[in-house]
Amino acid sequence: MNQYKVRTDLVMENGEKYEKDNVEIPGVKIRKHYNKVKDLRTTWVKIETEHGAHLMEKPIGTYITMEAPSMTADDDDYHREISVELSRHLKKLLPAHPNSVLVVGLGNQEITPDALGPDVINNLHITRHLVREYGYAGPGTKGAPMISALVPGVMAQTGMETMEILQGVIAKTKPDSVIVIDALAARNTKRLNCTIQLTDTGISPGSGVGNYRCALTKETLGIPVIGIGIPTVVDAGTIVHDAVSNLLEALEESEIQEFLGEIISPSLMSMFVTPKDIDETIKRLSYTISEGINMTFSS
Amino acid sequence: MNQYKVRTDLVMENGEKYEKDNVEIPGVKIRKHYNKVKDLRTTWVKIETEHGAHLMEKPIGTYITMEAPSMTADDDDYHREISVELSRHLKKLLPAHPNSVLVVGLGNQEITPDALGPDVINNLHITRHLVREYGYAGPGTKGAPMISALVPGVMAQTGMETMEILQGVIAKTKPDSVIVIDALAARNTKRLNCTIQLTDTGISPGSGVGNYRCALTKETLGIPVIGIGIPTVVDAGTIVHDAVSNLLEALEESEIQEFLGEIISPSLMSMFVTPKDIDETIKRLSYTISEGINMTFSS
Amino acid sequence: MNQYKVRTDLVMENGEKYEKDNVEIPGVKIRKHYNKVKDLRTTWVKIETEHGAHLMEKPIGTYITMEAPSMTADDDDYHREISVELSRHLKKLLPAHPNSVLVVGLGNQEITPDALGPDVINNLHITRHLVREYGYAGPGTKGAPMISALVPGVMAQTGMETMEILQGVIAKTKPDSVIVIDALAARNTKRLNCTIQLTDTGISPGSGVGNYRCALTKETLGIPVIGIGIPTVVDAGTIVHDAVSNLLEALEESEIQEFLGEIISPSLMSMFVTPKDIDETIKRLSYTISEGINMTFSS
Amino acid sequence: MNQYKVRTDLVMENGEKYEKDNVEIPGVKIRKHYNKVKDLRTTWVKIETEHGAHLMEKPIGTYITMEAPSMTADDDDYHREISVELSRHLKKLLPAHPNSVLVVGLGNQEITPDALGPDVINNLHITRHLVREYGYAGPGTKGAPMISALVPGVMAQTGMETMEILQGVIAKTKPDSVIVIDALAARNTKRLNCTIQLTDTGISPGSGVGNYRCALTKETLGIPVIGIGIPTVVDAGTIVHDAVSNLLEALEESEIQEFLGEIISPSLMSMFVTPKDIDETIKRLSYTISEGINMTFSS
Repeated sequence: MNQYKVRTDLVMENGEKYEKDNVEIPGVKIRKHYNKVKDLRTTWVKIETEHGAHLMEKPIGTYITMEAPSMTADDDDYHREISVELSRHLKKLLPAHPNSVLVVGLGNQEITPDALGPDVINNLHITRHLVREYGYAGPGTKGAPMISALVPGVMAQTGMETMEILQGVIAKTKPDSVIVIDALAARNTKRLNCTIQLTDTGISPGSGVGNYRCALTKETLGIPVIGIGIPTVVDAGTIVHDAVSNLLEALEESEIQEFLGEIISPSLMSMFVTPKDIDETIKRLSYTISEGINMTFSS
Repeated sequence: MNQYKVRTDLVMENGEKYEKDNVEIPGVKIRKHYNKVKDLRTTWVKIETEHGAHLMEKPIGTYITMEAPSMTADDDDYHREISVELSRHLKKLLPAHPNSVLVVGLGNQEITPDALGPDVINNLHITRHLVREYGYAGPGTKGAPMISALVPGVMAQTGMETMEILQGVIAKTKPDSVIVIDALAARNTKRLNCTIQLTDTGISPGSGVGNYRCALTKETLGIPVIGIGIPTVVDAGTIVHDAVSNLLEALEESEIQEFLGEIISPSLMSMFVTPKDIDETIKRLSYTISEGINMTFSS
Repeated sequence: MNQYKVRTDLVMENGEKYEKDNVEIPGVKIRKHYNKVKDLRTTWVKIETEHGAHLMEKPIGTYITMEAPSMTADDDDYHREISVELSRHLKKLLPAHPNSVLVVGLGNQEITPDALGPDVINNLHITRHLVREYGYAGPGTKGAPMISALVPGVMAQTGMETMEILQGVIAKTKPDSVIVIDALAARNTKRLNCTIQLTDTGISPGSGVGNYRCALTKETLGIPVIGIGIPTVVDAGTIVHDAVSNLLEALEESEIQEFLGEIISPSLMSMFVTPKDIDETIKRLSYTISEGINMTFSS
Repeated sequence: MNQYKVRTDLVMENGEKYEKDNVEIPGVKIRKHYNKVKDLRTTWVKIETEHGAHLMEKPIGTYITMEAPSMTADDDDYHREISVELSRHLKKLLPAHPNSVLVVGLGNQEITPDALGPDVINNLHITRHLVREYGYAGPGTKGAPMISALVPGVMAQTGMETMEILQGVIAKTKPDSVIVIDALAARNTKRLNCTIQLTDTGISPGSGVGNYRCALTKETLGIPVIGIGIPTVVDAGTIVHDAVSNLLEALEESEIQEFLGEIISPSLMSMFVTPKDIDETIKRLSYTISEGINMTFSS
C-alpha cells in the first residue's frame, strides 16, 4: 500500500500530533505565549536530543513560530509591529555582534507563491560594498554589520545546487552568518501567509514549492544559518488527506485504511494549493520581513 | 447540507457525466476525432437548444476542445503543429473576412497560472496602427484584418468591470469581432495545460483563477466574441471532492453523504491547485496560442 | 538648414528663455515660492491668452512645478512631505467634490524610464468596485470619491490610440475627472527625477519616451484632465545642442550657425538620455505620486 | 583642463583611430571579411604584444566583431543565421571538448538596456543538473558539455563584487570554462544593437551601463573566460564629444581646445543614451545569443 506522508515545514505542526494526547515529548521543550493586543501567538520549540529530533521530524535546534492571523490584512502599522517582533527574535538567534551577514532569497521568482525569498532581497538595505568602500554605510550605522545578499535561483535555471553556489560565495566573501529566506509548506491552510518561522537550524530539504535536495545548515555551509520562512502553500495531497481523514474518523477505520494510498494520486505530488490573492500577499509579506531584517542591522 | 458544486470551464467535462450512461443528450451534438500521429483528440460540442444548454451548464453555441497530452513537453515543432490546428479552428469560428479584430488578454499578470492571457498579447503581431498609418501592415499582408489588443487587468487593479472597459473600447475603435484569451479551471488535473477550448460563446462568468462577474459575449459586447482558453488550475475543492467520491463509491453512500458538505470547507473556495512547473508551462502555451492567432491573420 | 528644435514638457523651462531678458511675458502670470526647510521650489505658471500660449508653446491653463533636488535621495520621510504637497496642489486643480476619478498610467512598462505611469497605478488604492459593491470603500472613507485606474499600454502593444481607449472607457464608466500620469522629457539634466509638474491642461502630444499622437485633454476626453508628470529623460539631441551652444557663445556665432543642424543627426531623435540608476529612481518616484493621490482621496 | 576620455567596449572602434592614417599597428593583426549575402561584416583583431595592447587600450587576446545592420529588424530567419555564425566563432574560442561550461548573465534586469545578460540566461538550455542526475541531458546530447548558468546581479543588489561570487561558485562547481554575456557601450550610435563582440579575454572593467570594478578574466577566475557582448548604449558624454569634435574640425582648433573639458559636464558621466525601442531590441538580441550558445552545446 502506498502510504501518504503529510509534509509540513512548520515544526509546531509536527508538535501538534502529540498535543491531543497531552504527553510530554521527551527531548523537546515547548513554550507558548499569546499577546492579546497584537493577536500574536508565539511558540518556542527547542529540540534538544536526537530522540526529540526523530519524534519532531526536524533537526536539533531552536524554532520560533509567530502566528498572526491579522497579517493577511493590508495594514501597514500592524506589519510594522510584526517586523519589530521578527527583528527581536532574529537578534537572539544570530551570533552576538555579527560583522558580516549574507542574506539569501531562495525560490523561483517566476512562480508567485515561491517568490517570497527573492522579493525580500529587493527590499533589503545592502551595505557590504558601501562599508568596504567608505568604511561605513551611512549616518547612524556605526557598528552595524555589513549586509550582502544573493538570489541564487533554482536548479532548473542554474544547473547547480543552491548549496554549491552558497558554499562558493561564502568561501570567497567570508560572512560570519547566513540568513536564508524561503517560502514554506504548511499542512493547515489556516496558517498560510500569517505564520513566520525562525530557526537556527537553517533550511532542511524542503516540502515547499521548490525542492532543494541539499540542506543549508551550519554543517553544509560552515557558519551559523538562520532560516526565516512563511508558509505560502499547502501540498495538494495534504488537502485531500485531511478531508478523507475527517471522513474516516466518523466511520470505522479498519476496512478503508487501504483506500487512502490510492486516493492520493502521485500526480498530486507535483501540484500545490495556494490562495487566489497570493500575489498581493507575497508583496506585503516580503516587505515585512525585509523591514525586520533592515531594523536588525540598522544600529 | 452544504452541497459542493464541482465547477469546470470545459464543456466537454460537463458532457462526460452523461457518457457513462451512454445516453444521447437532447439538444446537444457531440463529435469526436482522434489524430494518432499528432496524439491530438478533438471534440466538437454543439449546444442547440436551451434544454441542451441547461443540461451542459454552458450557453448555446459551438465548442471545440483540443486535447494534446504532448503539449506539456517543450517541443517547438509539436507546438507549431498545435498552433496550425488552432488557427484552422479559429478561422471557422470567426466571421468570414473580418476587417478588424480586437484580441483581449484576460487575467492577472502577477499570478503565474492566470497570466496566460496577458502573455499571449505579448507575442501577438499588432497591426491596427500600421494599417491606419500606411494602409497595410507589411509585405504579404494585403487583405489581412487589422489587429488590436488590450490587457484590461483585473478589477482589484482597475476598479472597473472588464465588460465596461471592453464595451467602451469597442464603441470607440469598432472592431468587428473580439477574441478573448483566458486561463480556465478544469475538474480533472490530467487536462491541465494540455487542452485548448475554442468557443463562439465568448467567456461566461468563470471558475478560473480570476472571477469576472459579467459575461463577455455577443449579447454584452455587441459583436461576435470567440473565447480561447486553456485550463491551468483545478479548484482545491474539486480535488477533495473527487478523492472523497472515489472513497464513497467503495462504501455504501447513504449514511455518509452528509459529511461531504462539511469536508469541503469554504476556505478551499479561495484556493487553487496548480502544477509546480506552471511558470514554464505558461510561457510555452501563451506562445503557441499567439502563433496560432498570428497565423490566422497573416494572409 | 535643418534647425534643431529643443523640446521640453516642462512649461517652466519654456519660460526660462524669457527670464534672462527680464521681460514680462504678455498673457502669462508666473509666481515663485521657495521653501527653505524643505528645499522645495514651487513655480505657478498661468497661461491666460492664446498669445501667451504661443510664446510658452503650451496650451492655456495652470501649471504647477515642484522642484525638490533632495527627491533623488532615498529618504522616506522627505518623500512623504512631497506627497503631502503634491496632494495639496492636486486637490486645488481637481473639480470640487469629485464623485468618481479615473487615474491613467501612461507609458511602456518594459522601458525603465517610461514605466513611471504604470508603477504609480500599482501603488494606488482602487475603490470603485468596492464602493459599487458595498456602498463605501472601508472605514473612514465616507465622502471619498470612487477611484478606478487603467494602464492602457502603448500603441505598438495595442494597435489603438490611447485617446481611443480612454474615450471608450470614460463613456462607459462615467468618471467626472481623469488624472493622467506620465514620464516627461526635460531639457536640463539637473531637473531629471526631482521635478513634478501638475497641470489642468492634461497631456499634450509629447516629447517623452513614448509618443502619444493625440492629446488627452478636456476637449478630447470630455471631462477635466489633470496631468502629473516627472521628467525622467532628456532628448539625446538636446544634450548635444546645449553643449554646442555653450561653445558657440564663446565664439562668434555668425559663421558657424550652419553647422548646428548637421551636428545633431536625425538618428539622435530616436535616442534618449537617462541616468544609470533610473530603475530605483522610478520605483521611489512612483510611490511618492501614488501616495499623494491616495492621500487626496482618502477623506 | 579636464580631458574627456571617450570610452568604448568595442576593440574595433579603438582600432579605427589608426585607420585614417593607414598605419600598421605594431603588435596587432587585423583581418576583415564582408559577407554580402548576409550583409555581415566580420573583423578579427588579434592583439599579440603589450605594446599593441597599450595602443588598442584592450588586453592581449583575440576579438571577433560581427556587424550585421539587419539585426535591428524583427526577422527570425536572419537572427537564426546570426546565431549559427555566433556559434561557429564561439566553438573556436572555447577550449576543445569542454566538459562543463558556466554561462554568466551580467547586468541589471531592472534597467532595460542592461538586461541583455540576464535575458540570455532565460533562454538557455541548462543541463548540468540533468547530466549529473541521469548521465546525459536528453536524446542526441551525448558528448555535449554540462551547462550551468548564473545571474549574479549587480553590487547595489548583492553588496558583493561579481568577481567574488564567480570565484566562489567556480571553486565549488568546477566548470572548465566560463562564458560571460554583457551589454556593452559603443562610441558610435550606428553600431548599437547590431554588433556582437566575442573575445577570449573575458570582461574588462567596463564602460557599459553597469560598472564592474573587477575584471572577469582567466587571471581572476582561473579558467578560460569567453566574453560575448552587444553594445546597447552610448555614453552621453560621447555623443557630445563627437558633435563638438565635428564642429571643431571645421574651425581652427588651437583656441577652443580648452572648452571641450568644460562642455562635457561630469553629470553626463552618469547618463547613458539608448534607442527608444530598446525593450523589443533586447528581447530579440538575447534570444539570438541564447540560440547561438544552445547550438554550440547541443551536439
